[in-house]
Amino acid sequence: MSMKILVLPGDGIGPEIMAEAVKVLELANDKFDLGAELSYDDLGGAAYDRYGSPLADETLERARQADAILLGAVGGPKWDAIDPALRPERGLLKIRSQLELFGNLRPAILYPQLAEASTLKPEVVSGLDILIVRELTGGIYFGQPRERKVLESGERFAFDTLPYSESEVRRIAKVGFDSARVRGKKLCSVDKANVLASSQLWREVVEEVGKDYPDVELSHMYVDNAAMQLVRAPKQFDVVVTDNLFGDILSDQASMLTGSIGMLPSASLDANNKGMYEPCHGSAPDIAGKGIANPLATILSVSMMLRYSFNQVEAADAIEQAVSLVLDQKLRTGDIMSEGCQLVGTAQMGDAVAAAL
Amino acid sequence: MSMKILVLPGDGIGPEIMAEAVKVLELANDKFDLGAELSYDDLGGAAYDRYGSPLADETLERARQADAILLGAVGGPKWDAIDPALRPERGLLKIRSQLELFGNLRPAILYPQLAEASTLKPEVVSGLDILIVRELTGGIYFGQPRERKVLESGERFAFDTLPYSESEVRRIAKVGFDSARVRGKKLCSVDKANVLASSQLWREVVEEVGKDYPDVELSHMYVDNAAMQLVRAPKQFDVVVTDNLFGDILSDQASMLTGSIGMLPSASLDANNKGMYEPCHGSAPDIAGKGIANPLATILSVSMMLRYSFNQVEAADAIEQAVSLVLDQKLRTGDIMSEGCQLVGTAQMGDAVAAAL
Ligand SMILES: CC(C)[C@H](C(=O)O)[C@@H](O)C(=O)O
Ligand SMILES: CC(C)[C@H](C(=O)O)[C@@H](O)C(=O)O
Repeated sequence: MSMKILVLPGDGIGPEIMAEAVKVLELANDKFDLGAELSYDDLGGAAYDRYGSPLADETLERARQADAILLGAVGGPKWDAIDPALRPERGLLKIRSQLELFGNLRPAILYPQLAEASTLKPEVVSGLDILIVRELTGGIYFGQPRERKVLESGERFAFDTLPYSESEVRRIAKVGFDSARVRGKKLCSVDKANVLASSQLWREVVEEVGKDYPDVELSHMYVDNAAMQLVRAPKQFDVVVTDNLFGDILSDQASMLTGSIGMLPSASLDANNKGMYEPCHGSAPDIAGKGIANPLATILSVSMMLRYSFNQVEAADAIEQAVSLVLDQKLRTGDIMSEGCQLVGTAQMGDAVAAAL
Repeated sequence: MSMKILVLPGDGIGPEIMAEAVKVLELANDKFDLGAELSYDDLGGAAYDRYGSPLADETLERARQADAILLGAVGGPKWDAIDPALRPERGLLKIRSQLELFGNLRPAILYPQLAEASTLKPEVVSGLDILIVRELTGGIYFGQPRERKVLESGERFAFDTLPYSESEVRRIAKVGFDSARVRGKKLCSVDKANVLASSQLWREVVEEVGKDYPDVELSHMYVDNAAMQLVRAPKQFDVVVTDNLFGDILSDQASMLTGSIGMLPSASLDANNKGMYEPCHGSAPDIAGKGIANPLATILSVSMMLRYSFNQVEAADAIEQAVSLVLDQKLRTGDIMSEGCQLVGTAQMGDAVAAAL
């Protein structure tokens, strides 16, 4: 099986955290004889600086040829004033859409060693393990028409469109059910079916797909209630499946429940489990270049990649265990630091994981 | 000044909690010589049962004639299977839209006596006092076109539209700035301007309106980040202004941070401060008719009404103090019960507030 991996360090802390992830990946490559071949390119602001576009055609072509993509993070104030159509995020949205990476998996896991970091009471979040499955290539993010204009009255006016088709809902629902099946067997589909036409279709199709998964307990929840329940009793959730916009909001909320967003990886998969893997956190321009960012979410993205795209369970497990071990050793970057632990920088953390591996 | 109040008890626990609110209102009416005249009608499921519509034309006409409206709550499983266009929520959406109640104020306040009820750590939420200002008559809730159809391929397809005009954004931005001016002088506008055309216009117009409020510190935040920040450090917020859908989600999330959503009132105002007042919580059909629901949010809605629509500051303050007093007396309904307190029912709680008043 070929293992061509395109590495896109991106902007801000991206290059720093990616260097550590690559360190760990190359070690795993040797140790488990994975046959990984790495190539590099730019995305986001770095790509704008180099190619004049946040996703150059040649980069997209390389991404198509690759079996998986590792991404750091994109964006930063440096590109705030440029043409909106060329901003770093546009590159991210375009690669998601062009590669049809519709299935976005965002785990929100509370590491027992980091339980203190949460702003929620320990009994509310201890053992938290939620998987948010977000639809990533449809909905209001890409819906047409979208337009901005001046009305005859002289008033400015703008609108977006939130469309979903049956097949778009069906394929992401399947990802949700398949994920639930190998976990806690509970799927909660989140929508706003009491208001939106697209949500009514969403609910109907999820319900239909559920017929093929009698072993998975399906429930439906309105998005406002879901945002409440994530605060009130987050452990009631196993897998949550939802649309692009609701998934954006709820996955960020869920990740913050753990208090350690610097620990959370994510996967964006196409229909063949080809995927792009990236940390849940952003490019943190305020701490870029200082060597203090937490590389663990990116390292765990490597593990997720080995597991989902290459079925290399042993290597994936080993990396996760190595991360757990350095946490046991009380090594901490600033974002997850607490009393009695040892503060380390990005590279030291990467080295520690490599050593543990 | 006339004080014609239309009372709409609604469904579920609505009639029970409204009975207590009316008890308190009538007492305040006598005590402060308010000249309030109450009339009654139905909304939601109760209206469907009586009129065949969740908002009858005659009810809407009465609402137009009234100076303010007090609403309990609408909805329940009894009406789950009826034509979606006639469901209880539709009545609520229609009255908001027909009366142009575009300015929805949803405070999230942590009562010191109830600090324990929050799932967040005390230091994160103690003293929490956020006001969410939600646009209530525009955006994706009412945007046209919205449609459901079968494509030529035979696939089902549905879409919604998210429109905003300059004037819609301007008037809600003003409500946000005006609110901030008499509070902590900080306004955070929440949007998704890195993705949505409507959000780009939103941000631009809010920025323009801000020029008239040099004394208010304006910031902008993406909605996903806002959902994170509400978990990470909610006390950073003073007033939040946002669109209809984001406001739906974030106000529910914010109210749950307090752990006592049974305490939170809300106001929906038109351009002349005519308003509809209702508790933030729903109709709780599971406990309806048992006499155990918490009437305090509805009682506090009366106070909000006296303050915002009638400028009866003294009476409004007196009701709030009465509520605070019964909390000091350690009287609690089930939803806010904690050790060492006395469990009381809906009517007992209403009586206690009346006695304190
Ligand atoms: C950067 C932004 C466009 C993106 C999104 O909204 O999807 C980000 O918030 C995310 O969740 O990956
Ligand atoms: C019942 C529902 C239509 C309504 C809304 O979405 O606005 C409710 O959630 C609210 O927030 O008042």
